[in-house]
Amino acid sequence: MTILAPTHNGERYELFSPTALPKAAGFLWNQRMMIQITCRGYATSQFMQPEPAKYAHAPNLEAKTFMQPEQNYYAHHPGRFVYVKDEESGQLFSAPYEPVRANVDRFVFSAGKSDVSWTVEYEGIRVQMTFFIPTHDVAELWTIKVSNLSGRPRKISVYPYFPLGYMSWMNQEAEYRKDLGGILGSSLTPYQKAEDYPKTKSLKDKTYFLCETAPVAWEASQGAFEGEGFLQSPAALEKPQLSNSEARYETPTAVVQYREDIKHGDSREYRFLFGPAVDDEEVLSMKAKYLSKEGFEEAAQAYADYVKQGSGCLRIETPDHILDNMVNNWLPRQMYYHGDVNRLTTDPQTRNYLQDNMGMSFIKPTVSRKALITALSQQEATGSMPDGILLVEGAELKYINQVPHTDHCVWLPVALEIYLAETGDYALLDEKVKTKNGDDFTVFERFSRAMDWLLSKNARDHRGLSFIAQGDWCDPMNMVGPKGIGVSGWLTVATAYALKLWAQVCHDHGDPTSADKFLAGAAHVNESATQHLWDGDWFARGITDNGVTFGIKSDAEGRIWLNPQAWSILGGAATQDKIDKMLPQVDEQLGTPYGTVMFAPPFTGMREDVGRVTQKYPGQGENGSVYNHAGIFYVWALYTIGENDRAFKILRQMIPGPAEEDYVQRGQLPVYIPNYYRGGWHKYPRTAGRSSGLFNTGTVSWVYRCLTDGLCGLRGVKEGLRVEPKLPSEWSGMKAKRTFRGAEFDVDIKKGDVQAVKVVCDGKEVGGGVITGIEQGKTYVLEVTVPKN
Amino acid sequence: MTILAPTHNGERYELFSPTALPKAAGFLWNQRMMIQITCRGYATSQFMQPEPAKYAHAPNLEAKTFMQPEQNYYAHHPGRFVYVKDEESGQLFSAPYEPVRANVDRFVFSAGKSDVSWTVEYEGIRVQMTFFIPTHDVAELWTIKVSNLSGRPRKISVYPYFPLGYMSWMNQEAEYRKDLGGILGSSLTPYQKAEDYPKTKSLKDKTYFLCETAPVAWEASQGAFEGEGFLQSPAALEKPQLSNSEARYETPTAVVQYREDIKHGDSREYRFLFGPAVDDEEVLSMKAKYLSKEGFEEAAQAYADYVKQGSGCLRIETPDHILDNMVNNWLPRQMYYHGDVNRLTTDPQTRNYLQDNMGMSFIKPTVSRKALITALSQQEATGSMPDGILLVEGAELKYINQVPHTDHCVWLPVALEIYLAETGDYALLDEKVKTKNGDDFTVFERFSRAMDWLLSKNARDHRGLSFIAQGDWCDPMNMVGPKGIGVSGWLTVATAYALKLWAQVCHDHGDPTSADKFLAGAAHVNESATQHLWDGDWFARGITDNGVTFGIKSDAEGRIWLNPQAWSILGGAATQDKIDKMLPQVDEQLGTPYGTVMFAPPFTGMREDVGRVTQKYPGQGENGSVYNHAGIFYVWALYTIGENDRAFKILRQMIPGPAEEDYVQRGQLPVYIPNYYRGGWHKYPRTAGRSSGLFNTGTVSWVYRCLTDGLCGLRGVKEGLRVEPKLPSEWSGMKAKRTFRGAEFDVDIKKGDVQAVKVVCDGKEVGGGVITGIEQGKTYVLEVTVPKN
Repeated sequence: MTILAPTHNGERYELFSPTALPKAAGFLWNQRMMIQITCRGYATSQFMQPEPAKYAHAPNLEAKTFMQPEQNYYAHHPGRFVYVKDEESGQLFSAPYEPVRANVDRFVFSAGKSDVSWTVEYEGIRVQMTFFIPTHDVAELWTIKVSNLSGRPRKISVYPYFPLGYMSWMNQEAEYRKDLGGILGSSLTPYQKAEDYPKTKSLKDKTYFLCETAPVAWEASQGAFEGEGFLQSPAALEKPQLSNSEARYETPTAVVQYREDIKHGDSREYRFLFGPAVDDEEVLSMKAKYLSKEGFEEAAQAYADYVKQGSGCLRIETPDHILDNMVNNWLPRQMYYHGDVNRLTTDPQTRNYLQDNMGMSFIKPTVSRKALITALSQQEATGSMPDGILLVEGAELKYINQVPHTDHCVWLPVALEIYLAETGDYALLDEKVKTKNGDDFTVFERFSRAMDWLLSKNARDHRGLSFIAQGDWCDPMNMVGPKGIGVSGWLTVATAYALKLWAQVCHDHGDPTSADKFLAGAAHVNESATQHLWDGDWFARGITDNGVTFGIKSDAEGRIWLNPQAWSILGGAATQDKIDKMLPQVDEQLGTPYGTVMFAPPFTGMREDVGRVTQKYPGQGENGSVYNHAGIFYVWALYTIGENDRAFKILRQMIPGPAEEDYVQRGQLPVYIPNYYRGGWHKYPRTAGRSSGLFNTGTVSWVYRCLTDGLCGLRGVKEGLRVEPKLPSEWSGMKAKRTFRGAEFDVDIKKGDVQAVKVVCDGKEVGGGVITGIEQGKTYVLEVTVPKN
Repeated sequence: MTILAPTHNGERYELFSPTALPKAAGFLWNQRMMIQITCRGYATSQFMQPEPAKYAHAPNLEAKTFMQPEQNYYAHHPGRFVYVKDEESGQLFSAPYEPVRANVDRFVFSAGKSDVSWTVEYEGIRVQMTFFIPTHDVAELWTIKVSNLSGRPRKISVYPYFPLGYMSWMNQEAEYRKDLGGILGSSLTPYQKAEDYPKTKSLKDKTYFLCETAPVAWEASQGAFEGEGFLQSPAALEKPQLSNSEARYETPTAVVQYREDIKHGDSREYRFLFGPAVDDEEVLSMKAKYLSKEGFEEAAQAYADYVKQGSGCLRIETPDHILDNMVNNWLPRQMYYHGDVNRLTTDPQTRNYLQDNMGMSFIKPTVSRKALITALSQQEATGSMPDGILLVEGAELKYINQVPHTDHCVWLPVALEIYLAETGDYALLDEKVKTKNGDDFTVFERFSRAMDWLLSKNARDHRGLSFIAQGDWCDPMNMVGPKGIGVSGWLTVATAYALKLWAQVCHDHGDPTSADKFLAGAAHVNESATQHLWDGDWFARGITDNGVTFGIKSDAEGRIWLNPQAWSILGGAATQDKIDKMLPQVDEQLGTPYGTVMFAPPFTGMREDVGRVTQKYPGQGENGSVYNHAGIFYVWALYTIGENDRAFKILRQMIPGPAEEDYVQRGQLPVYIPNYYRGGWHKYPRTAGRSSGLFNTGTVSWVYRCLTDGLCGLRGVKEGLRVEPKLPSEWSGMKAKRTFRGAEFDVDIKKGDVQAVKVVCDGKEVGGGVITGIEQGKTYVLEVTVPKN
């Protein structure tokens, strides 16, 4: 059975089974909201005011938390549904699939870039559901179309069911408001202290479900709706007409009824608006703005245009169509999401903020530029960077941002390199940036200060190894260095990488003295790493407060970690002899069919000198999973040393498919790259490979870079575009269109009998493989021949 | 149809319909846990370590919050269930009622004082479920007995289903552990900062479900159990045998299968142990201690003995059998719960702590004594009392205890009066109590200091009215006085009451000078109240920071409040002429069929100079509901002025029944008094009267006092027992047994042709109605005649 296929335009994916990938989901967002919705109709949505809030709630009092990986769904999970009842036979089904789970005759879940839709058919009735969101407002715009294909007239009732859930313990009620034209749920955010009231007063505590067409009846009380029935057969649907029940400190819901006589071939179309509001006035204004055919059409076009802005700078044509679709459509979209909305948080982690915005270098470099300046404007007086970047007035460092990490400075040159490569905007370096401390330095000076900090006694011990404090990137081991003694093997070799990158910028910016200084610093760091952390076949992960080196051969769990290996290649600590020993160890110990795990073997119990990471289920989350963010740096490192096949294999593992079994095992459509796939391949093969379902991840901008600069080898350098494709052995060629510094590059890559890459640009061979003097608006045609394997 | 009846011993209640009162529940507790379980099988349980935690979870990440009123139940709410499948017909039902909701042939939910049980019959199979908890440990001890009454041999499978829910986003797994003999769910409490780890490390993050009899198969994964079925027809039950599915970062559950061939008349009995543990060792030790027939029997006896300790000091025989059962069994039990476990919080509000322990004066006065000293040991240097009393090392003032209230001192003499009346232990007054401030005063001095504080400029304005800060008792109006100007009408008249009570103690303790001082203070307070707060027919509720008097005739909402009226009677501000005006207003404006509402009309929107209370749904919670704690002080006030019929009517309204419609409307069994019944009688009659379902309330010790000292008129005074029954008009008499200062009083009260109460004790008439010289261990026979109406 085919369960999944791209649509004819090769962009959307259509899933034909609601049970094969039950958690398969699409997601939409704008700068004020995001919604993830599964093929079965369960939805998780949040909006910013300015901290995350909900307008459709669980049936109980939920904790306020970040988006959870491996989200659990259950009968009363918030969702968007339509029941259809045959008024003659009494038979009931629902779209998309929940809550009735009827054995429908046809099921199509279609995930698009700017909308999500379904087609469900049951006994001759077709339900089409589709929705999108506005460009700026917080709302869902739903169209529900019901058609009779049964060859005979039908009497049916159609019941959209949008549960509002347990809105608040302090107050919740709902009713149909004729003046508004829909159901309005009201609640109040609980507060106790008088001084908290002004904060809660202006919150959007109301949820509306507005109907363009007035229904014949409605229910606003979840209890009255279900009665002694179940969600798959609610008591209210057994009666000819809904009871118009208000909810008065009872769990609110939104159910409306349309009773229709439909001839064969005819259909009915309904539009609904669902979202939060502060008061009636806002409801009415949203209604006026959107709730009409024209309103929907305009908003849909505007939203599609918005999403289209995140189209990226690369289109490829390769033997791998799933890869092509990911690269041409979904990956830049996911990258755009990260760069445009910063994961809908008011205090992104500094490393996330830098990388998410780094991805915008490929889409809207002005955004990256601004983000670099914003980040630097919060640099500390010492030159170090804070754990999070505050984006709105009144925001605070929360959750993990209250745990001291020491790696944030490393990400500055890492992000800057891509920005400069894409734009050549070295002028940025001379911009002045003021902080709240009152200090006022140029971007160049601030970067140098950050690098100085990494080399300083604040950041490194007497041996030249980098302190870890309570954590660093990817793997928050909070007990390695809380006393200020323990060091991070990864951060040490990553420091060398950051210094090298920055030395290159110094060089390019005409400051060879600084370049030399930082190169010397890098060399010293690498010596230290080699002396203290090289374990014979790989680099150790760190040394604890008590002097215990870990991530080494004698460790039964957490024996080898990916990050120190990947970054020692990038930073230079891994000389060729070391690389030769390291790579087979990574293959053997960390490789799985679903990617390279972050470390192995996973911890099965707490190791109290390492800490938090070991608390997780083996193979899940940070504990020995295929953590894509770690994996993609390894891919990048492999590309830098010409390990093209190894690199491509792991890169490709980040995208589900093409085999059906792979989709099923991952449980995800190939429309985004999740933050992790489960590891535990040896111990728990049943669940290995399962997607976290979480699309927030610093992975994506690096995947994109591995494609543009690695696979396609179309990489920005100061002078222009360096062309050096790194095709996998099994490919004979590929095509690419690359937008770069305002010009278009139409590239045909073939394997041929050449010793080195041969680049022909507009008919002329390019010496050195770098295209210089690029003119904005011009299209360049490149014919590239790369050596056969 | 009879839906509810007491059992033959007149103590337990049996409910015969799972749908008539769907939220009807029983509850059990010990000092470390409590569990409330509905007739349909949904359970809410928590245990202390030392803050409240759960071992059976919701299907999502729940907020940590205090117990919610009007708890919402939904399909996946935590519960305790047994499925039974007929292996021949495939037919399925479940006990108690959820999740299958079969139309069972017989349903009995039986709420006992020390256990909860069910009998459910369906097609000749009877399931009896019963459970209780240990006296000291945290666990549930379940017995499930399945019998064949069908007249033929039956092949069935029995599946106890105890869902564990979403244990933790950081880690959750479960499996059947042969070595432990049951399913073990494991999780880890999430933490991020290294310094938080030691706190989480010793938490009981495991949940066990142990089986005395080994099952044939099991499921530990909720997903594998349900499959594409629903909870009322899980996929796993369609197969002959469960699949032995482990949960690996999947929502855990505990389901086991017993396959039985049962002859007619035969039965099978299973025992299970369900609870939290820190490790395997604890699981095994709990198993060894409890999981056997003998272990259950011993534990059941011990728990029944424990509950029996809360038997109170009064047994009555009146024309009202529901009242008798409440007074003789359930009310002292609820009072004991409050006094023994302090609502399972580590920082009870000061006024709750004092009143909950005040109730122990009727049960175990040594507890009350100790609590008074504990409270006083946290008195502030100024003489004022803190918002909460910290009960364990490391406890902190949380939630509402962070909102400044000003009334706590008032509750000291209010609680002390009952303690002294019951015990005559005036020696307490001379005990020294040290605080952390280092000051060291006697109890007497501390009380005087508290009363001085109430009279001081810290607590009262220039007019002599009491500041309210951000709230006082019963109705947290947090915006009346945050600037330190606004005053509370209730607190003003309550201050007079406290002073009067304390003056009496001063007098009894031989300090007439202090007595006179505090009486003069009370008189001044009452003058101030009269001058500034008397609104012509009742006392106002307060005056805001901006000088707006509220709770007055010209207010459209919150026009009249119960508390200022009740306490002005107690404190003396309400002279007889005022009482005559006030009582009819209370009757008319505040009376409902379900009790006297706290104020009326309820607020429908925020009144920003009053605050938080106005945010709630009209008639719910604090907003114009029948708040029993407020009501019972009015009852007491009415008894003190001989308004016996008015008093009894309202007192009786606190207990559901006797009409079936009343139980249904309240939605509660008469086994406890809830903190509120919904008001909104005029606006929302559909929901008026509905019980909050919350048994935490300071009401109960006062209800008890209204019964002992009011209705029965068997009231302690310094010299002994004052006898002055206050029977309602419609009764011709009643009997009572009262334990008092170690003696028993066997009392027969009759109405007769007397002008004043006539008391005959052991055959001799008692002049003045006070029995003095009471001898411990002696039984006194009283014949009391009270005047006919």
